[in-house]
Amino acid sequence: MRKIFQQELTELGDDLLAMSHKVAEAVRVAGEALREADIEKAERVIDADNRIDEYEDSIEAMCLSLLARQQPVATDLRLVVSGMRLSATLERMGDLARHVAYMSRARYPEQVCEGPMFDLISEMTEYATDITSELPRLLDSHDLEIAAEIRRKDDNLDEALKRAFELLNVEQVELKRHEVVDAVLLTRFLERLGDHTVSGANRMEYLVTGDLDLSVTENVGLEEFVD
Amino acid sequence: MRKIFQQELTELGDDLLAMSHKVAEAVRVAGEALREADIEKAERVIDADNRIDEYEDSIEAMCLSLLARQQPVATDLRLVVSGMRLSATLERMGDLARHVAYMSRARYPEQVCEGPMFDLISEMTEYATDITSELPRLLDSHDLEIAAEIRRKDDNLDEALKRAFELLNVEQVELKRHEVVDAVLLTRFLERLGDHTVSGANRMEYLVTGDLDLSVTENVGLEEFVD
Repeated sequence: MRKIFQQELTELGDDLLAMSHKVAEAVRVAGEALREADIEKAERVIDADNRIDEYEDSIEAMCLSLLARQQPVATDLRLVVSGMRLSATLERMGDLARHVAYMSRARYPEQVCEGPMFDLISEMTEYATDITSELPRLLDSHDLEIAAEIRRKDDNLDEALKRAFELLNVEQVELKRHEVVDAVLLTRFLERLGDHTVSGANRMEYLVTGDLDLSVTENVGLEEFVD
Repeated sequence: MRKIFQQELTELGDDLLAMSHKVAEAVRVAGEALREADIEKAERVIDADNRIDEYEDSIEAMCLSLLARQQPVATDLRLVVSGMRLSATLERMGDLARHVAYMSRARYPEQVCEGPMFDLISEMTEYATDITSELPRLLDSHDLEIAAEIRRKDDNLDEALKRAFELLNVEQVELKRHEVVDAVLLTRFLERLGDHTVSGANRMEYLVTGDLDLSVTENVGLEEFVD
């Protein structure tokens, strides 16, 4: 019984790791689709999101079943609860990657926008790819130094978002109406990918240390950039 | 022991209900602040969000403690797991209400925008107030007809969001750059409030029926309105 339980916990960890790899890849490919105006890559991200959603369903079902049958305590309980939380966070990250891909597809064959705003959005896709790629490493190693690194890397996205809104609020910067709309949504989605990655890192820290940090809200207060 | 457990489950339900009332009020007052350009109301929403976050922390801690000490099964387990999920959803809704309030405050003493876009955003704040006010009623009564009503009411926000993006993409509609930025964010926040309310309704349905519906993703695919 105990042996089966441990096997199931291992399976849970493996599924979360596999899910985090799928999400990191979705973010990477969505960024490439955006930078290269590559509709095949955009379609690939959109199609792959179903698989990510299936992971959440099966992981949540597995966690509920584990709680009901095994009634875990201590570290095992943290593992199951963290698993439920992490799968929900990863599912949301998959949605955001899909949103980014939708916008590349909607503008194809054109770029979502041009000039300095395009450069800034491209920069943010690189940051989003970089930070989300840390999550599988963290899930695999449980190395909390990676969690700290994730929190540091989120600053890149927060700082870039502020620059984006400064740029957007300059009437002189030449942007079509739909480019403004796309830029607001894209920069928001990319910044949220950073927030969710930090949220996942905090969950992993809780898993390892038992010290629950629920401060998974946004690092950038909107008041800082809607002014 | 069992008696204490039942008392704790009742307490959990009471806390979730109280939290949902706070969130519904935050959404209502944030909408008023926006429609009336009332900075006192905006400040009230912003200040009240800390209390909502505290509810999430205490509810999550209570749920973890219940899982560890009481190892609930069946309906009791569903109650605890749903409690964790619902508190996370409610916390996020509080953040969105705070975001709306930030934007009123940032534009004060002016309105966030003018003309038909202001009317549409105002309409969306009414829909958001309406749908979120159903959540405490659902948590209190466990009446699944209210859950169905919530799903129906979310269509108002989805449909209004589409109209907003149609309006935004008409270059002829006179809007300052910052009005476009605000309108994109505000309409997105308000539509997300609907999505999270539906997510909460689905969780309650799971609690009552045991039938888990994880389809809490957005009803409006972005591809429908970024074109």
